[in-house]
Amino acid sequence: MNLALLFDEDFVGPDRVILRGRRLTHLQSVIKVATGDTVPVGRADGNMGMGEVLRLTDTEAELRVTLDQMPPTPLPLTLILAMPRPKMFRRILQTCATQGVKDIWLINSYKVEKSFWQTPWLSEDHVRENLILGLEQAKDTGIPRVQARKLFKPFVEDELPALLEGKQALVAHPGTSIPCPVHLNRPTALCIGPEGGFTPYEVEKLEEAGCRGVHLGPRILRMETAVPVLVSRLFDACLSG
Amino acid sequence: MNLALLFDEDFVGPDRVILRGRRLTHLQSVIKVATGDTVPVGRADGNMGMGEVLRLTDTEAELRVTLDQMPPTPLPLTLILAMPRPKMFRRILQTCATQGVKDIWLINSYKVEKSFWQTPWLSEDHVRENLILGLEQAKDTGIPRVQARKLFKPFVEDELPALLEGKQALVAHPGTSIPCPVHLNRPTALCIGPEGGFTPYEVEKLEEAGCRGVHLGPRILRMETAVPVLVSRLFDACLSG
Repeated sequence: MNLALLFDEDFVGPDRVILRGRRLTHLQSVIKVATGDTVPVGRADGNMGMGEVLRLTDTEAELRVTLDQMPPTPLPLTLILAMPRPKMFRRILQTCATQGVKDIWLINSYKVEKSFWQTPWLSEDHVRENLILGLEQAKDTGIPRVQARKLFKPFVEDELPALLEGKQALVAHPGTSIPCPVHLNRPTALCIGPEGGFTPYEVEKLEEAGCRGVHLGPRILRMETAVPVLVSRLFDACLSG
Repeated sequence: MNLALLFDEDFVGPDRVILRGRRLTHLQSVIKVATGDTVPVGRADGNMGMGEVLRLTDTEAELRVTLDQMPPTPLPLTLILAMPRPKMFRRILQTCATQGVKDIWLINSYKVEKSFWQTPWLSEDHVRENLILGLEQAKDTGIPRVQARKLFKPFVEDELPALLEGKQALVAHPGTSIPCPVHLNRPTALCIGPEGGFTPYEVEKLEEAGCRGVHLGPRILRMETAVPVLVSRLFDACLSG
């Protein structure tokens, strides 16, 4: 937690917040704050700044906050991921949030096992919790939007074309001859397949919708590695770093 | 396991290997091979190719192998990492191996907790096991070399200058004004600090040894994200992909 993210319910006055639970524990056990210290804070979907610890007890910390800094620029990226294996899912959500991805779509694919969709980590609360952990790591405030589509064909035929409008659209696919472009720095939609990749039918449907297949070289990356590698390749340091 | 890595002790003839244990289980349970099928194989530190399943029992698989393909080009990178937290360590080793890093140094730093060095995952066997998992994911055969240095100052003063010779030398450090360069594609040494970063004294010592401080933008990445992001930024698709 490099920044404590603040929510409407934390505010007890225009510049006063009370923290309890996880954030309080972190302030006490990891940062080891004392009254009078200042810590980095940010308001969800708002500005960042500093919070001065006014009062500290075992159960709560009261902070006076000054929120005068803009958060980092969001990435102009729509990330469309085949639903990851549960043990990778939380980490991928956190990494996306840390890297500044704000628009995430989880989609089905032939090689996504049905059980992946049953994970409790897909509940709204758990998704939000992991996005917040990613933002607090990065020092960012803008909560990403995550949407799930459990049927591939209706998504690709009915929703995807509109999503791709005005964007460079790519599908990461080891079979293709075009290497992934670098540092586009412009609105992009990127589809990443499951372990084992999209099927040829799925790649064809994604291409019909307007995506261009690109590869990442001879090495096969796990999805949790492919996401940071692709994001880092598509956007330059001042945006994605 | 996108490739079964083969070792001298697996060979029972010039083109015959017998697999047992983890690799056999994977062939049977995940790939579900039958006699006559071919699977991707590679010889540790040697060529890659295909293996034809000649015989399959509950306890072993005999393969006839043809090893006629070169593995992907190794990255010209010396990666110097502050010893990671144990729960991240295995994953970072695997990711490094998957991305083609062949020269890894684990070093101490003020913010590396002493307990990090006590992890059983640092044993030679466990390190090797995780490197192999990373290579089998990537489809690569060259086993990375991993070295540990538990004292910062002797390493930086006595060993580092020689390690940096002929290389672009960088230390990833959020405080600096120079953004990390992209696509150098030439021999590089890269130092990455622990959670919380190198101390100012440590950065100074690394700079004295010849490293230039570079940053990755306003976002603070976990080490397990910083490694793929930096590698992807420093080397182009055909090498690092």
